[in-house]
Amino acid sequence: MEAELKEMLSDLESLKRSLPDPSHHASIDKMQLRVQNLTNLSESAPVRRSKVKDMSAEVVDSNPYSRLMALQRMGIVQNYERIREFSVAIVGIGGVGSVAAEMLTRCGIGRLLLYDYDKVELANMNRLFFRPEQVGMTKTDAAVQTLSDINPDVSYTLNITTLQGFETFMSSLKNKTFCPSKEGSGVDLVLSCVDNYEARMVVNQACNELNQTWMESGVSEDAVSGHIQLLIPGETACFACAPPLVVASGVDERTLKREGVCAASLPTTMGVVAGLLVQNTLKYLLKFGHVSPYLGYNALKDFFPTMEMKPNPQCSNAACLERQKEYILAKPARDAAAKAKEKEEVLVMEGPVHDDNEWNISVVDDSELVTADVSSSDALPEGLVRELPSADEFQRPTSPEETTNPMDDLEDLRKQLDALNN
Amino acid sequence: MEAELKEMLSDLESLKRSLPDPSHHASIDKMQLRVQNLTNLSESAPVRRSKVKDMSAEVVDSNPYSRLMALQRMGIVQNYERIREFSVAIVGIGGVGSVAAEMLTRCGIGRLLLYDYDKVELANMNRLFFRPEQVGMTKTDAAVQTLSDINPDVSYTLNITTLQGFETFMSSLKNKTFCPSKEGSGVDLVLSCVDNYEARMVVNQACNELNQTWMESGVSEDAVSGHIQLLIPGETACFACAPPLVVASGVDERTLKREGVCAASLPTTMGVVAGLLVQNTLKYLLKFGHVSPYLGYNALKDFFPTMEMKPNPQCSNAACLERQKEYILAKPARDAAAKAKEKEEVLVMEGPVHDDNEWNISVVDDSELVTADVSSSDALPEGLVRELPSADEFQRPTSPEETTNPMDDLEDLRKQLDALNN
Repeated sequence: MEAELKEMLSDLESLKRSLPDPSHHASIDKMQLRVQNLTNLSESAPVRRSKVKDMSAEVVDSNPYSRLMALQRMGIVQNYERIREFSVAIVGIGGVGSVAAEMLTRCGIGRLLLYDYDKVELANMNRLFFRPEQVGMTKTDAAVQTLSDINPDVSYTLNITTLQGFETFMSSLKNKTFCPSKEGSGVDLVLSCVDNYEARMVVNQACNELNQTWMESGVSEDAVSGHIQLLIPGETACFACAPPLVVASGVDERTLKREGVCAASLPTTMGVVAGLLVQNTLKYLLKFGHVSPYLGYNALKDFFPTMEMKPNPQCSNAACLERQKEYILAKPARDAAAKAKEKEEVLVMEGPVHDDNEWNISVVDDSELVTADVSSSDALPEGLVRELPSADEFQRPTSPEETTNPMDDLEDLRKQLDALNN
Repeated sequence: MEAELKEMLSDLESLKRSLPDPSHHASIDKMQLRVQNLTNLSESAPVRRSKVKDMSAEVVDSNPYSRLMALQRMGIVQNYERIREFSVAIVGIGGVGSVAAEMLTRCGIGRLLLYDYDKVELANMNRLFFRPEQVGMTKTDAAVQTLSDINPDVSYTLNITTLQGFETFMSSLKNKTFCPSKEGSGVDLVLSCVDNYEARMVVNQACNELNQTWMESGVSEDAVSGHIQLLIPGETACFACAPPLVVASGVDERTLKREGVCAASLPTTMGVVAGLLVQNTLKYLLKFGHVSPYLGYNALKDFFPTMEMKPNPQCSNAACLERQKEYILAKPARDAAAKAKEKEEVLVMEGPVHDDNEWNISVVDDSELVTADVSSSDALPEGLVRELPSADEFQRPTSPEETTNPMDDLEDLRKQLDALNN
């Protein structure tokens, strides 16, 4: 538009020069002014934010990374800037995938690979991210349009078709242009945000073959539950180790769809699932907190089940069995590395964390409190009772001894018997 | 821009007519073509989606409500369309409030009242919703710009200043133009999404005075935990019933801020908190599932504590004490209503839910399964073990008998003693 207006100006100028009668000049001057106005109007269209070379922790309103870099000062993440070195693939840019892509974009991830073959429809407007004016665009195009405006620092790679062409999918994951020094595949994590089992099995196959860690996500057809799951080839169950009934029975899931019936969906459930998925992605990449092996979300009861799944030695997936074998063979090396790391951590812990002690804070060993019997409320100051179970207590697995009779001491039994007899 | 271009065309036309020499006409024709081009260009700018009169459940790509109306067919919500009758106020349009507003907008809420006094900064870009080109706009203006594009069916009300003018805040909540027949205030729910205690105390005061149910939300300074809480005046604790230390001690929290230091924030944590907040809002308004009185989110451990807080009879807030008194006085009426409802439900349950039975499904009473001892795995088919605790089991309070010695039967003790003796 700017180019067209510029040529218009020069057209008017040459017309003016070619006209002998100055009475026409006033009318041309007026038009030139109009063109100038139009140029100003078109230039006042949104300006894009410029790229940022280094992430700064400076606390100013113009710094898009100040609130993220603050995670370092707060002691949550050791080196937040490392986020720029990571490459994440998202398969499926729907209600969960698009929000996950936006979260990673705003967090300043290095590179995003987006896979989808679908187009944006008005029927997608009940979930976050896509806008009505994007209807008809491919989801990947629409996503990159929005995301590159939000953060031009991230590098985006689009992949329109994905699962029809398994080889194309594999080779795009292996592409190492972003990070040539990286071992294995060209991505650090694959996030599966698809809505069918066939696509999940394809992601599973590719990740097993590439020995690529991935996270799976899903939302139920009635929109009120969802889950995320971490899959490490050889170490955890793969998607084929304990396949859903529809996969195990070999039914084509597309035949299960009924005319005029669609699945329900909610921006809330999908937003929560995307949030939990990307939170665990950040924990996994930046090495902080505990990465959940499986986390469910029951929206009706606000209940969040967790579990762990070991690989199945009778898994139907040949690549999974190979990874399982490798994992078992690597056990001695893994144990030695863990031991060395533990030793190193002990050495680090022996030194003081902060040399200055402005507030005169002294640290008291709380291991006694943790191991104390949780049922005795003696540990609390007088007058206080616990309203909330503590996070440690929640994660402590309930041992079978607790629910069965804990007594196997003859002396104890005798004492109780005496007491009952008296 | 369109008007300017139209006038430009007529200017060129009159210039052409006033020029005697036809050699100039070609040059003017060319310019007219240019203006026509420019008009086409400016008209191809994004088209807004038109308003929808009634929510339809029709499964077509062009229906923005099909996935929400499917909640009815799935038996989750009885009458989803009622969402249009509700009015929700959101105080604070930051990292949580803006996402909550977008979720409610996409769900098709009737009316949103948005309160904020702040402007959009680049430093907000690490959280969802605002875009770099909105920097400098007030958050309320920027929000309505985005939201009305997404869903023009929602009616939006902006409130730039809020908490400085308590009376203005109160009267805007009392305004009933949207729903004149509504009793009490003009809104169905107030969502507090602010980042300081002073603002929370203002919302608390207004809601206690208006007897207005509200939900509070918050995210910690280190960005890795958050919570939501339901506050019903007189029935649950108000924000002043158990005030945070900084409020109770009367310290001005603004004096606690240090130069060059800001709180950390993450789009993930804020997205999860907003999702849980709006999910509970939907459950509250549309009457489905269980509305959590308090739900925490610990991002490092993926731990979600819940609790309930009764009102404090020594609360420092006079309006809270008044609401508590009313709540106690209304107990007999409440009990009678609950009894009547229970009776009604029993009557409804006696009739069949579906008259036709296409799949020949018969219902078996599963109450025996629920009440059966959960520690006995006999209820499961042979070869299956439970990996996951069920939601019901999770919500069942652990009785003290389970952790202490469950034996008080003399006969049992004697048998064990004999076994140990042998």
